[in-house]
Amino acid sequence: MIHPTAIVSPAAKIGKSIKIGAFSIIHDKVEIGDESEIGSHCEIGIATPLSDGSPLIIGAHSTIRSHSIFYAGSIFGDRLVTGHRVTVREGTHAGLNLQIGTLSDIQGDCTIGDYVRLHSNVHIGKKSVVGNFVWIFPYVVLTNDPTPPSSTLLGCEIGDYTAVATMSVVLPGVKIGQHCLIGAHACVGKNVADGMIAAGIPAKTLGPTSNIQLRDGSGLSAYPWTTHFHRGYPEEIIKQWKKENDDNPLS
Amino acid sequence: MIHPTAIVSPAAKIGKSIKIGAFSIIHDKVEIGDESEIGSHCEIGIATPLSDGSPLIIGAHSTIRSHSIFYAGSIFGDRLVTGHRVTVREGTHAGLNLQIGTLSDIQGDCTIGDYVRLHSNVHIGKKSVVGNFVWIFPYVVLTNDPTPPSSTLLGCEIGDYTAVATMSVVLPGVKIGQHCLIGAHACVGKNVADGMIAAGIPAKTLGPTSNIQLRDGSGLSAYPWTTHFHRGYPEEIIKQWKKENDDNPLS
Amino acid sequence: MIHPTAIVSPAAKIGKSIKIGAFSIIHDKVEIGDESEIGSHCEIGIATPLSDGSPLIIGAHSTIRSHSIFYAGSIFGDRLVTGHRVTVREGTHAGLNLQIGTLSDIQGDCTIGDYVRLHSNVHIGKKSVVGNFVWIFPYVVLTNDPTPPSSTLLGCEIGDYTAVATMSVVLPGVKIGQHCLIGAHACVGKNVADGMIAAGIPAKTLGPTSNIQLRDGSGLSAYPWTTHFHRGYPEEIIKQWKKENDDNPLS
Repeated sequence: MIHPTAIVSPAAKIGKSIKIGAFSIIHDKVEIGDESEIGSHCEIGIATPLSDGSPLIIGAHSTIRSHSIFYAGSIFGDRLVTGHRVTVREGTHAGLNLQIGTLSDIQGDCTIGDYVRLHSNVHIGKKSVVGNFVWIFPYVVLTNDPTPPSSTLLGCEIGDYTAVATMSVVLPGVKIGQHCLIGAHACVGKNVADGMIAAGIPAKTLGPTSNIQLRDGSGLSAYPWTTHFHRGYPEEIIKQWKKENDDNPLS
Repeated sequence: MIHPTAIVSPAAKIGKSIKIGAFSIIHDKVEIGDESEIGSHCEIGIATPLSDGSPLIIGAHSTIRSHSIFYAGSIFGDRLVTGHRVTVREGTHAGLNLQIGTLSDIQGDCTIGDYVRLHSNVHIGKKSVVGNFVWIFPYVVLTNDPTPPSSTLLGCEIGDYTAVATMSVVLPGVKIGQHCLIGAHACVGKNVADGMIAAGIPAKTLGPTSNIQLRDGSGLSAYPWTTHFHRGYPEEIIKQWKKENDDNPLS
Repeated sequence: MIHPTAIVSPAAKIGKSIKIGAFSIIHDKVEIGDESEIGSHCEIGIATPLSDGSPLIIGAHSTIRSHSIFYAGSIFGDRLVTGHRVTVREGTHAGLNLQIGTLSDIQGDCTIGDYVRLHSNVHIGKKSVVGNFVWIFPYVVLTNDPTPPSSTLLGCEIGDYTAVATMSVVLPGVKIGQHCLIGAHACVGKNVADGMIAAGIPAKTLGPTSNIQLRDGSGLSAYPWTTHFHRGYPEEIIKQWKKENDDNPLS
């Protein structure tokens, strides 16, 4: 179901049962998997010298909400979900079921794992490496230039299961481990070890995340969050988490 | 005056003397009061399971500027004014003459009083409670999840007449009183009492707002701001403020 | 080449060899120089009482990317380049080859020099004065109201060649000198002398920028950045920089 006002290139490879909203533009270099939906006012598949002839490939069962802009030269696994007005540049390689919140801006030349959730207005600089099951909250910026402006780009690395809270900046080349929590409004200039909390400007390590309790009165530890937060993940992954957490109760 | 390229559902309830701009979409579940104007490239009234069959209700004499997106299931009083590219999700309940600046993102399930001004690029998290006559400046985030990610959402409360300056974060569950000033680039993790200044990371209370003088050479106190700043408020409200401030000169 | 869905006022003054994308709107009070390109879904030349009858003037060889919004009453030199979804209000006066990143918001009544680069999501408050060759990185806000809300607007000044890193706030009336570096996530409340680094909340001066080495293993100083970073500048300017830096090796 392609809206009659949408402009879809005959060269675009569109799967079965695709919806495309009003006033959207689909350029030549686009491959969209079956059962996907693209909202209104989008521009999808802008080709540039940086995309170097490569297409934009979007997996099946994806949803791109209105006013979003994707360049050619990126690959997304199945079940990509975006908010409104996201911008995604060339060279972004993302796994399964990435969620990109409204207004987020992915600058390209970056790698994003499976089941990553980027909330609203997140900025992912070039050369970033984001693991699996990572959460990044509103107004977080992953930077890359240690001496701005320069041609030396040192991407950040964010480990699996880590959560970066609102309005934090991760400085160029910093590696944040797995299962970490970065507090709101932090400026992270040094590496953070697995399972640690870091917060402040400049950010300091404040101890293990297992020290933090849920605020629901249960008295249970809030981390690893895989013990209690399962919304939107596939059943087989939740089962695997349960097994891992049972085997390793204070991981 | 509905632009011929606009797509307006016949089920939408459109008042008298409404303007709708080019390339805008008005869905079924929309009620717009008389003498309102909707700019170009908007998408108004997106229905979802979260809107639960409820319409988007927008009061009379409202202006929604171009590229804005409103979901169904929210209510706005008369004289709503927005900038460009605002996003408003389901369950937002706002009073009279709310102003929402360009790029601001209201996540829904929140309550906003009368005559509130949100400047550009403000993020209002779910469960937020914003009083009357509040000012929130660019890049401020009202958060809600104390242990991200989790299912425990603790909204912030911002009291009447309070101003929250640029790039501040209010942490989950924090209550900021009436007539407060939150300094720029603050991270507010504790409640703030009425009439106080708080600033810094983490934010500390720095004394009463009445200590701050206007920078116009008058030597007058800058707070309560209702003593000197009246632009855009109705005459009867300005009269009431004058009476209150005369009765209570250092309030 | 004007796309057949674009709506272009016959009163707009459009140069030679102009491209205008699908679903874009060009209002009456617009003058666009030769060989320029405007992307899709833009709204260009919105007239208001603040634009006071003045047109939007955009120099030749300019590129405005999709979903951008410009008001009437501003002037841009040749080779303006924007990202997507920029917003520019009335009374903006900018020199040659300004680059405005995706989502940036220029509030108007401001002056911007030649060859300025604003990265994504930069907010330029009214009354700002930005010099030549300045770099401003993502999520930086230049503020103007010392006692919000008030009618006293004190603009910031940013000197030539200065770089302001990600997520920094410059407080009202602050003057940052030439060839400075403002570190990421800073809140700058005091003036910064020429050639100095300032960082932190509140920002403190940390010494001369010449102390900072490039991170490319060369051992060379990273500042002035004109010694090593030339991408996108005209040949004659690069020659002039080389002469200045040769004459004054540690400037």
